Amino acid sequence: MNNFNWDSSFLADFDLETGISQNAETTKRHLSQMKGMYCDVKAAENILENDDPLVYEFYELGAPEREGDLAFGTTILYPGTIGSEYYMTKGHFHTKLATSEVYYTLSGEGYMVMENPEGDTIEMPLSKNQAVYVPRSYAHRTVNTGKAPLIVFFTFAADAGHDYGSIETKGFRKMIVEQNGKPAIIDNPKWN
Amino acid sequence: MNNFNWDSSFLADFDLETGISQNAETTKRHLSQMKGMYCDVKAAENILENDDPLVYEFYELGAPEREGDLAFGTTILYPGTIGSEYYMTKGHFHTKLATSEVYYTLSGEGYMVMENPEGDTIEMPLSKNQAVYVPRSYAHRTVNTGKAPLIVFFTFAADAGHDYGSIETKGFRKMIVEQNGKPAIIDNPKWN
Repeated sequence: MNNFNWDSSFLADFDLETGISQNAETTKRHLSQMKGMYCDVKAAENILENDDPLVYEFYELGAPEREGDLAFGTTILYPGTIGSEYYMTKGHFHTKLATSEVYYTLSGEGYMVMENPEGDTIEMPLSKNQAVYVPRSYAHRTVNTGKAPLIVFFTFAADAGHDYGSIETKGFRKMIVEQNGKPAIIDNPKWN
Repeated sequence: MNNFNWDSSFLADFDLETGISQNAETTKRHLSQMKGMYCDVKAAENILENDDPLVYEFYELGAPEREGDLAFGTTILYPGTIGSEYYMTKGHFHTKLATSEVYYTLSGEGYMVMENPEGDTIEMPLSKNQAVYVPRSYAHRTVNTGKAPLIVFFTFAADAGHDYGSIETKGFRKMIVEQNGKPAIIDNPKWN
């Protein structure tokens, strides 16, 4: 999947309006691939009886996991809810825990939901023209609370690695749900 | 200068149209601070008799130089020439040589001029919607060949460090000049 020479320079297009890239490869996450991550599993199953909606996709370049390199790309997170819970990405820790990530919001609105292994939780609002810093050692998940796609440009150390398993097992301590038509941050009743 | 807590999350605004930030601090580079870097020193001195134009400015957040952190911000490089040489940034190696940098062009056009200690040279065109990868161990300089500001969003390892001295002493092997109204890549006659 890697058509880029990371020892030389290269260009990669990422449309500033749509986040779409012609050069990069897209990975798509449909609801069926993450139904167990939503709190209301029954709501997810009801949707999946008729449809398997695309929740998000990201464009990446297949960076080598080498010290000193940087991985970068865009994520397009679509609007929607599963029960009252807004569409979100799977979320992950970095395998090399003490590494950070920069997200620059190109369009849309939502939250970056973060927590560290000690249980500290942070929720930061995302909006166009704002970059958010995901500090070292924090798991992070993007949530779309708007009516349009949430589009972000991300950069992280190429050797950081992704640990999805911890979040798939335990979930995040906090979740973002729609209450009275507005986003609310609540404790995740299924967190364990 | 550091108002951000890098152990927690924070937001920083960078306008996607102008590159300007209200949260970050700006560093300005006027011609007088880099006149010796242009090939035609006489042309620079002639301009400086009447004026000290702003060549570029960048917004940065004062990232701690710690492993695992990322520094990021915007650079606004104004249009213009000194003799036939287009406005450019000072350019630098990273002190921790084998580290990379990602530049995402928000507006304008120009070149990223790169070279490594072994003398390999690369010039990559910059334009809106394109990210350019500066590979590990390459000095890099941004050049504006357009009529409008060239605006880029950059990210690099916070502990990479900046070595400006090598370039100030030797220059880059290649330079970008206006020839017949168009950019041309030529050998730098003053490189040593």
